Amino acid sequence: MPDPILTTDLARELYAVARDLPLISPHGHVDPALLADDQPFGDPARLLIVPDHYVTRMLLSQGIPPDRLGVPRRDGGPVETDPRTIWRLLATNWHLFRGTPSRLWLEQTFRTVFGVETPLSRDTADEVYDAIAARLREPEFRPRALFERFGLEVLATTESPTDDLARHAKLIADGWAGRVISTFRPDDVVDLEREDWAINVARMGELAGQDTGTYAGYLDALRRRRQDFIAIGTTSSDHGHPTARTVDLSKEDAAKLYDRALHGETTPADAETFRGHMILEFARMSIDDGLVMQLHPGASRDHNRALFAAHGRDVGGDIPQPTNYVHALRPLLEAHGMDPRLRVVLYTLDETAFSRELAPLAGGYPALFLGAPWWFLDTPDAMRRFRETVTDAAGFYNTAGFVDDTRAFCSIPVRHDVARRVDASYLASLVTQDRLPFDEAAETMADLAYHLPKRIFKLDKEGTP
Amino acid sequence: MPDPILTTDLARELYAVARDLPLISPHGHVDPALLADDQPFGDPARLLIVPDHYVTRMLLSQGIPPDRLGVPRRDGGPVETDPRTIWRLLATNWHLFRGTPSRLWLEQTFRTVFGVETPLSRDTADEVYDAIAARLREPEFRPRALFERFGLEVLATTESPTDDLARHAKLIADGWAGRVISTFRPDDVVDLEREDWAINVARMGELAGQDTGTYAGYLDALRRRRQDFIAIGTTSSDHGHPTARTVDLSKEDAAKLYDRALHGETTPADAETFRGHMILEFARMSIDDGLVMQLHPGASRDHNRALFAAHGRDVGGDIPQPTNYVHALRPLLEAHGMDPRLRVVLYTLDETAFSRELAPLAGGYPALFLGAPWWFLDTPDAMRRFRETVTDAAGFYNTAGFVDDTRAFCSIPVRHDVARRVDASYLASLVTQDRLPFDEAAETMADLAYHLPKRIFKLDKEGTP
Amino acid sequence: MPDPILTTDLARELYAVARDLPLISPHGHVDPALLADDQPFGDPARLLIVPDHYVTRMLLSQGIPPDRLGVPRRDGGPVETDPRTIWRLLATNWHLFRGTPSRLWLEQTFRTVFGVETPLSRDTADEVYDAIAARLREPEFRPRALFERFGLEVLATTESPTDDLARHAKLIADGWAGRVISTFRPDDVVDLEREDWAINVARMGELAGQDTGTYAGYLDALRRRRQDFIAIGTTSSDHGHPTARTVDLSKEDAAKLYDRALHGETTPADAETFRGHMILEFARMSIDDGLVMQLHPGASRDHNRALFAAHGRDVGGDIPQPTNYVHALRPLLEAHGMDPRLRVVLYTLDETAFSRELAPLAGGYPALFLGAPWWFLDTPDAMRRFRETVTDAAGFYNTAGFVDDTRAFCSIPVRHDVARRVDASYLASLVTQDRLPFDEAAETMADLAYHLPKRIFKLDKEGTP
Repeated sequence: MPDPILTTDLARELYAVARDLPLISPHGHVDPALLADDQPFGDPARLLIVPDHYVTRMLLSQGIPPDRLGVPRRDGGPVETDPRTIWRLLATNWHLFRGTPSRLWLEQTFRTVFGVETPLSRDTADEVYDAIAARLREPEFRPRALFERFGLEVLATTESPTDDLARHAKLIADGWAGRVISTFRPDDVVDLEREDWAINVARMGELAGQDTGTYAGYLDALRRRRQDFIAIGTTSSDHGHPTARTVDLSKEDAAKLYDRALHGETTPADAETFRGHMILEFARMSIDDGLVMQLHPGASRDHNRALFAAHGRDVGGDIPQPTNYVHALRPLLEAHGMDPRLRVVLYTLDETAFSRELAPLAGGYPALFLGAPWWFLDTPDAMRRFRETVTDAAGFYNTAGFVDDTRAFCSIPVRHDVARRVDASYLASLVTQDRLPFDEAAETMADLAYHLPKRIFKLDKEGTP
Repeated sequence: MPDPILTTDLARELYAVARDLPLISPHGHVDPALLADDQPFGDPARLLIVPDHYVTRMLLSQGIPPDRLGVPRRDGGPVETDPRTIWRLLATNWHLFRGTPSRLWLEQTFRTVFGVETPLSRDTADEVYDAIAARLREPEFRPRALFERFGLEVLATTESPTDDLARHAKLIADGWAGRVISTFRPDDVVDLEREDWAINVARMGELAGQDTGTYAGYLDALRRRRQDFIAIGTTSSDHGHPTARTVDLSKEDAAKLYDRALHGETTPADAETFRGHMILEFARMSIDDGLVMQLHPGASRDHNRALFAAHGRDVGGDIPQPTNYVHALRPLLEAHGMDPRLRVVLYTLDETAFSRELAPLAGGYPALFLGAPWWFLDTPDAMRRFRETVTDAAGFYNTAGFVDDTRAFCSIPVRHDVARRVDASYLASLVTQDRLPFDEAAETMADLAYHLPKRIFKLDKEGTP
Repeated sequence: MPDPILTTDLARELYAVARDLPLISPHGHVDPALLADDQPFGDPARLLIVPDHYVTRMLLSQGIPPDRLGVPRRDGGPVETDPRTIWRLLATNWHLFRGTPSRLWLEQTFRTVFGVETPLSRDTADEVYDAIAARLREPEFRPRALFERFGLEVLATTESPTDDLARHAKLIADGWAGRVISTFRPDDVVDLEREDWAINVARMGELAGQDTGTYAGYLDALRRRRQDFIAIGTTSSDHGHPTARTVDLSKEDAAKLYDRALHGETTPADAETFRGHMILEFARMSIDDGLVMQLHPGASRDHNRALFAAHGRDVGGDIPQPTNYVHALRPLLEAHGMDPRLRVVLYTLDETAFSRELAPLAGGYPALFLGAPWWFLDTPDAMRRFRETVTDAAGFYNTAGFVDDTRAFCSIPVRHDVARRVDASYLASLVTQDRLPFDEAAETMADLAYHLPKRIFKLDKEGTP
């Protein structure tokens, strides 16, 4: 019976402390319709392969185009539609995933979620497929049933200010006990370089009942929509920018950029300045309304332009880039870094920043916390390096706990489980080195797995409204 | 009985080789008045918490302002003065330090310096406080007695050319056997951006009996003051710049920058050029007078401006920044990198430079040696990464040995002890991997702990003058 | 009996899978004359010390100039000529190499190639020297005999388009069974900053029978010469640029840069643009003729100018520099990154790019593969870090396998052996962590050691023509 990552009894003991604690998922991309509608999942391929860009990008890297994996095309052109064919393609190329987190997540999902113990291989492709497909037809494998089985105490989805939150309203109206909240993610009304920016802003204005024809109206619309999100339980916002740059513009200068954008006169430099400025605006809004800010800079989006052209965003074409924090965040920190009412959770895709910038910053400003190693770094080895490089200057209590950041609902428990195993393993190494007594390591274990994310993301107030 | 870091018998055997070797401390910030006056230390809080910015910054990061920890304000405003209150605040928040070097240093200091075995916690705060306070009243815990007990063979403090070295003179005049020398640190007469630069230069001129109204006079004053430092035993200089930039200006161009500065006409670019140029001037002085040069670039000083405004410099508000060496040092290395009379010890706060730049440079130029991992990197994990990344290209003998860099006198033996443990652990791993026989590992152990720093910092000539 | 790196039985079992597999050496710098002429090697010092810049640079870093080690001077001035004196100088300073790959390679070469078990030291210098010298006089120690004993299935040397390939022709004409091919390395006809660029281009033109007076003729000459290389078995090209920059110029703009260069009017910026542009030209040629492209950017060449002045290139004076891939490669990848006919193997000297840029790129573009950790990173610790940082996003099958990159013929088996040991050790850690079953680890082991490099460098077609 595989028991990944843990290699000592001490690590297993520490893991046992956290294994059965409820899951706190304050940052993810599950479609709320899934839980609002509670329809059965589709076939194994559409559930586990087609939407998983970790999987499709690896296969692409070895010459298997996303079309053959059923990934929809923007032009509506034909792609593979037979789920069994897609599944076999994965099984035949399963060796490509040796040593990767995708393999760990999928194997553990097969086993712990679906109870399928047969290892996947070219020869067992159909057997594994059929076993999972059979499970998916059972009522115990509907989304809400799984939500409860997973021990999810709270799940945050992510929506834009252009979203009417109807599915969250339905979830509340249904009276189902599961706590599903949203995260306020305004990138598509902030990034002036998006071709749909003006449309998005107008849509937000309608939903907010505000005239977004002026910068002041735009800010008001954002404030109103934040209140709508807070009303359905939201406790944080999320900001994904190319860089960590923050800029402290005057209202007048910001309004000029905004007006120029409405007239379609934005330069790339304007857009970068405006994104940076809006971080300060959002910080001020957070100080007022209490939303925790999450910043995750550092992705060169749609680096693979051919992939973007064929299949659009979020299909595995983003690549990390070097990311500076120490200078980029200074305007934000000068203005509000010492304010105890502000809480900012920082993520990175550039590991070099962990010991050099992020841990010293989080270990020096009350407003800052470090987000979990994320995306390309959400792996056993990278999570271990995270602890080894940030604990020195930030300790454990300036880190915000694990976030699964996933659109793959069925992988949620596995991802948390891997993080708990890695933390158990790291804490065990401190105990073994006489750097921490066992009882404190055990308390820390529970804090990292459960109490810290709950507190830092302000999820310790009960339930949705 | 905790025995931190060491997890194998082999590591313990190698550690045993170095455990009792005398301490060489060629780079630190202990106040020489401490040893010149040999007065009893104050209370435990003022000794161990108030001046330790590693401790106060971590507490600040969790919302406890330095005022509540007794850190003096620049405006003389009120701060906490009751040492027991400050001590309890640390004890109550002791969990924040789990896994950090601060915890390791403090715990080991309590135990090995003060003989207090009770682990610190909220419940034991007073017990630990009282035990340490009692010790501090004993004559065996006066600075000179501790100096001898610590096995300090030599301790270098750090002074500016504006210092009259009166306390060092007193130490020599006293005839006490302890070897306390200084380090020549001219930053405050080199950095044109300091508001007190002109005052400092004038003060240096007075002490040197030189007219600093000209660039030539300024250089003469520096040379004279270096001789004053050498006369009280100094063997090295120390240069803390924001970057590692070196510039080889003509005397004429340097003189122009200097003159402009005297007239208050300095730009930030001028200041950076002048700092870079002065590295070459100091290298030339070192070739003449034999002082070892220490360069430690890479801190964004006073990043936390609110902290600087309230409490001034060196209270935990500095943050590391990305630091380039390969291009920055080239002017220095072209001019003098092959000169066997020059010895430069390089430090970094940017770990990415270890394998990419620093080890290849130190492993390729006779003048260069690598300083110990320092400040944010003076930790068990970072010291291990230092050896793992620099040994390939620089070996052990292009590294300069441990420096404690501390103003916390009582933590000196513990810091050296941790470094010795980490090196023992790394050397043991080489032995286990059949990459080094035990006898050579043991010899290397003693070299790293004692012989190398003594030789590289030119401390192998006997005693103070 | 030392068995380096392996510390567990599991690692030893996995290593055993690969230990005796043939060696694939698709990237190296052995002089083909060695095998074409098959003359006995000279003395131990000229074989093992004088040409090994890893060894001479370490000794230089401790003040022993290359002259004393017999490294030839550009001015023909006197250098040490007595091999035994040179050898003793190494032995006397053997401690400098503790923990370095040079020591591992030399010790293993002494033992496994020459059968000399006596550890080198000041006292045993002559004994080891004499034992190796005696071996070198035996016919079993001639180059071709060693080639066969080493189990070299194929060895690629590296030549410029200005090389007439006469020695490779002789090797083919001789009918000797050893497969020795070349690699097409056009840097000296591409880098406009080289003082001999125009001469090199003219020489290439003569060999190709093309008029290089125009850019079109220059490209034709390159194409012809690639065919000449392919005719003697070449399967890849190799491009060593200061940066990874790629540029997609129009033919017209490229022709203008070329014309200006012929007239001696090149700026450094022109040269960088032209190098970047030529990567795209070579990619297009590769799509046509099938040569695998190797890119290895990131060295600041001849950083040590005094060393260059005295002894020329490739004697240990190069230093790595920070290297960007994500933006630099984008023009290449936009144009051809999705083309299955293109195969690009990327190297780096900047480890920070592994997890941040290189693994995501190789794990996202069909054309890209990751070359082995190279040069300063060809070490047990760095190779381990390579696997730990790239496997997450690139897996094993987007890595291209080990290359020895050496001019030291006798070190080839040892270098491959070290790589196999490190991979065995890493794979064992995955098995121990229940992240990979043993049978798949064993299959991966053989793939990394043999099958992958053979396939990725297109060496799976039989023999030389």
